[in-house]
Amino acid sequence: MGWQKSVLDKLAQTFQIRNKLLRQGLAECLGTLILVMFGCGSLAQLKLSEGSHGLFLTANLAFGFGATLGILVCGQVSGGHLNPAVTFALCLLGREKWRKFPVYFLFQTLGSFLGAAIIFAEYHDAIYDYAGESNELLVLGEKETAGIFATYPSKYLTPLNGFFDQVIGTASLIVCILAIVDPYNNPIPQGLEAFTVGFSVLIIGLSMGFNSGYAVNPARDFGPRLFTAMAGWGSEVFTARDYWFLVPIFAPFIGAVIGVIVYQLMVGWHVEGEARDKKAKAREEVMNLNDVASKE
Amino acid sequence: MGWQKSVLDKLAQTFQIRNKLLRQGLAECLGTLILVMFGCGSLAQLKLSEGSHGLFLTANLAFGFGATLGILVCGQVSGGHLNPAVTFALCLLGREKWRKFPVYFLFQTLGSFLGAAIIFAEYHDAIYDYAGESNELLVLGEKETAGIFATYPSKYLTPLNGFFDQVIGTASLIVCILAIVDPYNNPIPQGLEAFTVGFSVLIIGLSMGFNSGYAVNPARDFGPRLFTAMAGWGSEVFTARDYWFLVPIFAPFIGAVIGVIVYQLMVGWHVEGEARDKKAKAREEVMNLNDVASKE
Amino acid sequence: MGWQKSVLDKLAQTFQIRNKLLRQGLAECLGTLILVMFGCGSLAQLKLSEGSHGLFLTANLAFGFGATLGILVCGQVSGGHLNPAVTFALCLLGREKWRKFPVYFLFQTLGSFLGAAIIFAEYHDAIYDYAGESNELLVLGEKETAGIFATYPSKYLTPLNGFFDQVIGTASLIVCILAIVDPYNNPIPQGLEAFTVGFSVLIIGLSMGFNSGYAVNPARDFGPRLFTAMAGWGSEVFTARDYWFLVPIFAPFIGAVIGVIVYQLMVGWHVEGEARDKKAKAREEVMNLNDVASKE
Amino acid sequence: MGWQKSVLDKLAQTFQIRNKLLRQGLAECLGTLILVMFGCGSLAQLKLSEGSHGLFLTANLAFGFGATLGILVCGQVSGGHLNPAVTFALCLLGREKWRKFPVYFLFQTLGSFLGAAIIFAEYHDAIYDYAGESNELLVLGEKETAGIFATYPSKYLTPLNGFFDQVIGTASLIVCILAIVDPYNNPIPQGLEAFTVGFSVLIIGLSMGFNSGYAVNPARDFGPRLFTAMAGWGSEVFTARDYWFLVPIFAPFIGAVIGVIVYQLMVGWHVEGEARDKKAKAREEVMNLNDVASKE
Repeated sequence: MGWQKSVLDKLAQTFQIRNKLLRQGLAECLGTLILVMFGCGSLAQLKLSEGSHGLFLTANLAFGFGATLGILVCGQVSGGHLNPAVTFALCLLGREKWRKFPVYFLFQTLGSFLGAAIIFAEYHDAIYDYAGESNELLVLGEKETAGIFATYPSKYLTPLNGFFDQVIGTASLIVCILAIVDPYNNPIPQGLEAFTVGFSVLIIGLSMGFNSGYAVNPARDFGPRLFTAMAGWGSEVFTARDYWFLVPIFAPFIGAVIGVIVYQLMVGWHVEGEARDKKAKAREEVMNLNDVASKE
Repeated sequence: MGWQKSVLDKLAQTFQIRNKLLRQGLAECLGTLILVMFGCGSLAQLKLSEGSHGLFLTANLAFGFGATLGILVCGQVSGGHLNPAVTFALCLLGREKWRKFPVYFLFQTLGSFLGAAIIFAEYHDAIYDYAGESNELLVLGEKETAGIFATYPSKYLTPLNGFFDQVIGTASLIVCILAIVDPYNNPIPQGLEAFTVGFSVLIIGLSMGFNSGYAVNPARDFGPRLFTAMAGWGSEVFTARDYWFLVPIFAPFIGAVIGVIVYQLMVGWHVEGEARDKKAKAREEVMNLNDVASKE
Repeated sequence: MGWQKSVLDKLAQTFQIRNKLLRQGLAECLGTLILVMFGCGSLAQLKLSEGSHGLFLTANLAFGFGATLGILVCGQVSGGHLNPAVTFALCLLGREKWRKFPVYFLFQTLGSFLGAAIIFAEYHDAIYDYAGESNELLVLGEKETAGIFATYPSKYLTPLNGFFDQVIGTASLIVCILAIVDPYNNPIPQGLEAFTVGFSVLIIGLSMGFNSGYAVNPARDFGPRLFTAMAGWGSEVFTARDYWFLVPIFAPFIGAVIGVIVYQLMVGWHVEGEARDKKAKAREEVMNLNDVASKE
Repeated sequence: MGWQKSVLDKLAQTFQIRNKLLRQGLAECLGTLILVMFGCGSLAQLKLSEGSHGLFLTANLAFGFGATLGILVCGQVSGGHLNPAVTFALCLLGREKWRKFPVYFLFQTLGSFLGAAIIFAEYHDAIYDYAGESNELLVLGEKETAGIFATYPSKYLTPLNGFFDQVIGTASLIVCILAIVDPYNNPIPQGLEAFTVGFSVLIIGLSMGFNSGYAVNPARDFGPRLFTAMAGWGSEVFTARDYWFLVPIFAPFIGAVIGVIVYQLMVGWHVEGEARDKKAKAREEVMNLNDVASKE
């Protein structure tokens, strides 16, 4: 198969991108696409089958292990953040450079948008069948289908509680992720971080999903929302429920700050400090030995 | 137990097959048998118990971890593809030889057929009890049982959307599998690839299972369908729903091509290229050193 | 805490058992106790809560991961069979000595019996509350509670199909376990075998649990049945459904034989043979070299 | 980003706590907070959504993997007990110092309290919406919400059976944990202990959750109960159901003692003794060799 090999090599060289940040952006885009495709796909399956082919649990599983698979696809290249709030938290701690933040945000949102588009294509017939005779794509009400793609708050939720909901959810996610990737506190076998993050996302959905569908991720919410605005649901996706769409864009960053502070105050700075103290002590001892040696 | 040992040794030598491709075919056959036996078994349990002993989620779990167990049983011998579309994708990328493709396809379909036969034996009484007084095995309608074995589209599904459904599902599977087995991007601890593929299959079922039952595998669908045609459901299993049976045979290969292109364009060729660049640079440096050394 | 340490040391030495087979028996007893306690506990919770605190899936999960935990508790000491059919299969293949078989069988059945007793104590009030005013422990009928402990066939099941059900289920289990522990085909990271066996048990429950509750284990079924006979359900637990209790005692051993044959014929003997061939070839080459060397 | 780095360093040094026990206490506090936040969060989601966004299974998953994440967050620092009964068992076996016990108990209860407070904030609107027009927070009855936070027994449960329930549940947990952390019997790959403990908690919930909600942890039950007493449910949370609150405080310690005895008698002391015997034999042989050597 010499012929096949040479074609493959040529393709590989033609399409290879050497700009690292662009490559990382593309990887984040594919990873977030996978997260949103599987996550929103399961919400579509749950709603359109009217419960016969899904449970809220299956949507939680799909978002959780969708995150796992998304991270596995792109993690080696870009770190597998899939979430601007995660990128933000890592920038805050100086583990990623700030210039990555806007690039990742953009590509994560693009991936989300594309993931939603794929699910719209996948369930095109089912969505119109569900809409019924009117053939309308509704944002609110009993026959709404916008909730497949972006999050909308429960009726009882006040804006303040909704805001806290996103802050608490994101802070929980960030605490778990920081523990998983902390270089001074990392008990996970290498390669299983993606699974552990997936379990964190799963469990946030199991316990904080009732208020507004646990976006906890500006890209995951905004990309699909933009898609629905363009695909026929109209601008109501932005205005509905008192401009709710702003909450999952801004609140997660505040959650990220709180998550960073909580983890660092209660665990991070102490394990980091212990490592630094040990190093300092070791250096001192070496110097003392040198002193002794030089005096002799 | 010298007697037992010598009998075992004699058996081992008598039945040992030295032809590697045949051995791989047999292994694929057993692996796919396990996938289909557990997967279709769970669909049987779900339908025949009328929901008391199953959920759509349990069928997703059974296909997912059935894939895991199937891969574990045969992976060391044959690679554990269990799916002609996977074999096809790996051939496309030059990672498997093309002559394996027809052999694997055949044995995967055989394994599927046998897996369906085992489930028919397992649930023989339950299937006829479910059929009721007429004692008929129906392909369509309320009392159908053909859907236990092969996939049939939902009523709302147009052929075009059905075709896309299989293309999208298979492309998603291939992207995940390529990431898991990419030699330049493999963050999974060795031995856990089977579990990760299982999670991919699970999640495809959670998010893309409502349209037509996510065959995404020509062998998994055709083998059991052929069995039902022979076991009493008749030729309607082929003609039903506008010859639907052709879709899960052909669409997955197109999905495999798209999956390969997407993964390679967005991640694969860049990590591969990076490795190649590093190697080239290292070689150059060595040559420069040699130059310098030879001049001295 | 010198005082505490010396007490602990004294206790450790007093109760240490040096007979290896007895120690292994005790370990199997505790492991099977854990399997049955968690498994039957989940069946009790499902039935007694009338579905509010359980699903058939939760019972599958409890038997599956109950097997995982049971194996983890005793695996290092006894191998963690938890099932006479597994011990039998390993004896057949010459991997365990035959004299272990009766000892393991006995202790596994004892562990099962004790596990059932613990669940009876745990749910004593709930069982009598469920029984209602009559305060009777019933084996059959709507208000039966014997099915919490031992298995009973579905109404539609003929004895022949019931027999096949246990044979097929056990054969499937044995094929999976043989693949997991095959010294020539073991791709599982060490320490995760227990999880993989747990997934096998889970999946058998998801796909073969509807006919008769997938005992696939003579000890798991007979121990609790004996307990129910003694605890108030009476001898009907043996006579019910045409002496069904004999099926899960004998059929699993036939399933074990078939599982061994299928795995060895389709995978086992070939990987074993390949390893032997390689060894033989290596030895030959060494001898050839020696020949050459001695001639020189 | 030299500026950012220096601020981070200064913060790290300012907030670093050098007292090891305090640091461990803080870590336990955060770990238990995570366990209770996710666990009680899922109970809230289950109850407040009246089943649309949860199952009893999802609460089991949340407590199980909440334990996993809690252990991952603090395990490296404090061992990740998250439960005074676990600390007690490890003290009993001399693996932890007794002076840790009161400190851990305090911080675990504090973490529990804070976790419950976060869930109250998260679901503030939903709790009052569920309470209805009366706007009352009820401890018992159909519209009760106290069960989200602390455990209350089922109606049929007598105090004696309730006591046994907590003893059996905790003993089961301790047997599993001792097997997982036994230095002489530890087959789990390092770093996966947290997952295995999570599966133990999950499975206890699947099989022993119906009687009274499987507290099996004095801190997990008392912290949230105290919070509810202060947040508006009043002192009835203590007096309800014959002062039930005392049972999950005291019974788990008795369960811990029984769990330690069972595991040590049936497995622990034998594997420990075997290791000691081997060591003694090796030492003897070395001494014999020395004897021989000195005589020559």
